[in-house]
Amino acid sequence: MTTDCSTTSTLLHLECGICSKKYDSEQLINMCSDCSRPLLARYDLKKAAETLTAESFSSRPPSLWRYEEVLPVRRKENVISLGEGWTKLHLAKRLGKEIGCENTYIKDESTNATGSFKARGLTMAVSRALELGAKELSIPSAGNAGGAMSAYAAAAGLKSHVFMPKDVPMLFQVECKELGADVTLVDGLINDCGAKAKEGVKEFGWFDVSTLKEPYRLEGKKTMGYEIAEQMSWTLPDVIIYPTGGGTGLVGMWKAFSELEEMGLITSKRPRMVCVQSTGCAPIVRAFQEGAKHATLWEGAATLADGLRVPVAVGDFLILQALRDSGGTALAVTDQEMIDFTRVMGRNTGIFPAPEGAACLAAQVRLLKDGWIKPHESVVLFNTGSGLKYAHVYV
Amino acid sequence: MTTDCSTTSTLLHLECGICSKKYDSEQLINMCSDCSRPLLARYDLKKAAETLTAESFSSRPPSLWRYEEVLPVRRKENVISLGEGWTKLHLAKRLGKEIGCENTYIKDESTNATGSFKARGLTMAVSRALELGAKELSIPSAGNAGGAMSAYAAAAGLKSHVFMPKDVPMLFQVECKELGADVTLVDGLINDCGAKAKEGVKEFGWFDVSTLKEPYRLEGKKTMGYEIAEQMSWTLPDVIIYPTGGGTGLVGMWKAFSELEEMGLITSKRPRMVCVQSTGCAPIVRAFQEGAKHATLWEGAATLADGLRVPVAVGDFLILQALRDSGGTALAVTDQEMIDFTRVMGRNTGIFPAPEGAACLAAQVRLLKDGWIKPHESVVLFNTGSGLKYAHVYV
Repeated sequence: MTTDCSTTSTLLHLECGICSKKYDSEQLINMCSDCSRPLLARYDLKKAAETLTAESFSSRPPSLWRYEEVLPVRRKENVISLGEGWTKLHLAKRLGKEIGCENTYIKDESTNATGSFKARGLTMAVSRALELGAKELSIPSAGNAGGAMSAYAAAAGLKSHVFMPKDVPMLFQVECKELGADVTLVDGLINDCGAKAKEGVKEFGWFDVSTLKEPYRLEGKKTMGYEIAEQMSWTLPDVIIYPTGGGTGLVGMWKAFSELEEMGLITSKRPRMVCVQSTGCAPIVRAFQEGAKHATLWEGAATLADGLRVPVAVGDFLILQALRDSGGTALAVTDQEMIDFTRVMGRNTGIFPAPEGAACLAAQVRLLKDGWIKPHESVVLFNTGSGLKYAHVYV
Repeated sequence: MTTDCSTTSTLLHLECGICSKKYDSEQLINMCSDCSRPLLARYDLKKAAETLTAESFSSRPPSLWRYEEVLPVRRKENVISLGEGWTKLHLAKRLGKEIGCENTYIKDESTNATGSFKARGLTMAVSRALELGAKELSIPSAGNAGGAMSAYAAAAGLKSHVFMPKDVPMLFQVECKELGADVTLVDGLINDCGAKAKEGVKEFGWFDVSTLKEPYRLEGKKTMGYEIAEQMSWTLPDVIIYPTGGGTGLVGMWKAFSELEEMGLITSKRPRMVCVQSTGCAPIVRAFQEGAKHATLWEGAATLADGLRVPVAVGDFLILQALRDSGGTALAVTDQEMIDFTRVMGRNTGIFPAPEGAACLAAQVRLLKDGWIKPHESVVLFNTGSGLKYAHVYV
């Protein structure tokens, strides 16, 4: 669907998440040149609020593009869409009864294009990269992000280069290749892949769409926060449990809630944000418990949940700040718990979750047991992707 | 979303597809007791047309449930929904240019719950089975249907029994099991699985949701026809190419077009319907070429496209009739063509298709070459599911 005309975007400029230095948004840019930290998109929220009213939503498209005013793409012909966002928020009645928390909801991201929430970030990053003149894109990926980037790049007609750990499951590699990406397997983890991708960026001028190393994947991910608010009739749950690798979704939702409040769509009441990681790779949990502002690299990261095998996150300080500001917490679960809770979710809801989604349920059950979550509280779990991509785990 | 109230369904009764004998719709029933052939749902289309107007759609839900008046479920609390239908119809510009047919569209069914078009039929069959009092469901499946049935049964809180060929890819088995289904592997093909499932039906009173052996999967599948019509502004394309195993979708779309015309939403113009099968299993193609009314069993069926490994279809006569009435055709493609055209579609569109989806593209290219499709004609291809379920094929 390409018609040549402007969107209603109210994007103003970019701003460093640490030093608040401002940058022109109409250039291909990665991070703050002073801090080497993430840039955040800022909008004219006063103007956006004029049209982005609760009443306006009944006639908007059933995708994340329904929030056009607070998304960065300037022209409609640059919107590269494959079916992303406006996913179901399930009230999981039988599951809730089984675990003793009747207001349990699951935000099921498995029906996005390429089967995961990564579609949200990449639809935005690729659309914007196209708009700003990029020709070739590169990404380091533990799995899902590579597939999503390959898909949106193919839809946009851009070349794509994906760098994956060499032990990444076969399915993730096949997905990228069949979508026309150039795939390089790297002897190491996601951060090593990032280093490798950087070489190509330097040598060939590829544009790097690593998460939080360009400004717009965050903008795609924040729509999860917009959708939860809208789907809960402009209120928010008591608790949101989020599986945290790079943490872009958690940071994005926190940003969304601020924007929504500034536009008068929600009150100042916030959910307690919970970060779930794997016991085999839990840098944010460790930093949270130590009261640190930044997280240090997790040595020997190992977990079957590829999306959680992220030993260091460039947005660590933003994640930790959101957890603390919200009165939230961080905890790690084992691979075995993820496997066990997959079937608990599956047979009680009809959703076959990724291990990362099952990790949220395991965390919820533990927090209920500890009394940190009360049985009457409303809790949103994130199933970040389809269990189909992890079928090999269950054989 | 369960509220206790009536839907706007205008379902009247069921009717045999061969002898037109009528049956009460408010009973759990499989096929015509005289002919052992499929029963078709009939509606009060005059009444449905009063509210199902082109103007009414802007405020309807973004799922197949937007066509509530012409769907069979009576009460809202029985609607078991996981996110099905209202999938994107992509205008595949770059692909169209590459193959010399600029009005090439892809109806991408991979974003349905469980990653395939099977969700459409099973949401309807399971919702209706729940409504009419079934407690346990059984299904023979070559792959995707089993996963979809397991998911909807789990969401409904019904027990499910899946019978699959023992050589079905691991991923399909895992999906059913993690969704709580009882899985039996059978030494044979889908028809042998059907025979095995029948034993349980007899012994334990399970309800059989084999395609076209109960009336409502067809009703779910027909929504593909409704959606194409709505997405093309109440016109239809010149050609629809459909990968045909059991053929329920093709028969369903043909039924949808009749209903739409009777309600005054479209004219009498119909697309030429094209059935694609595999050279390793092409009973409908053979019957079409021989001018036969029914198809005979294809011996030694073998193809990597599990959805096309259907040696005999109970709705064969309905498929063949639709092909002939529409001025359509039937052709078979090889497994190698499916593999080759997967990447052609992938790199030009961002859609990683199932082999069945790639088969449609292979067929389109051949029909363009033969002159059966003209370059200016509009063509809709069906990508019936996600290529992710077939990643093992590409290693």
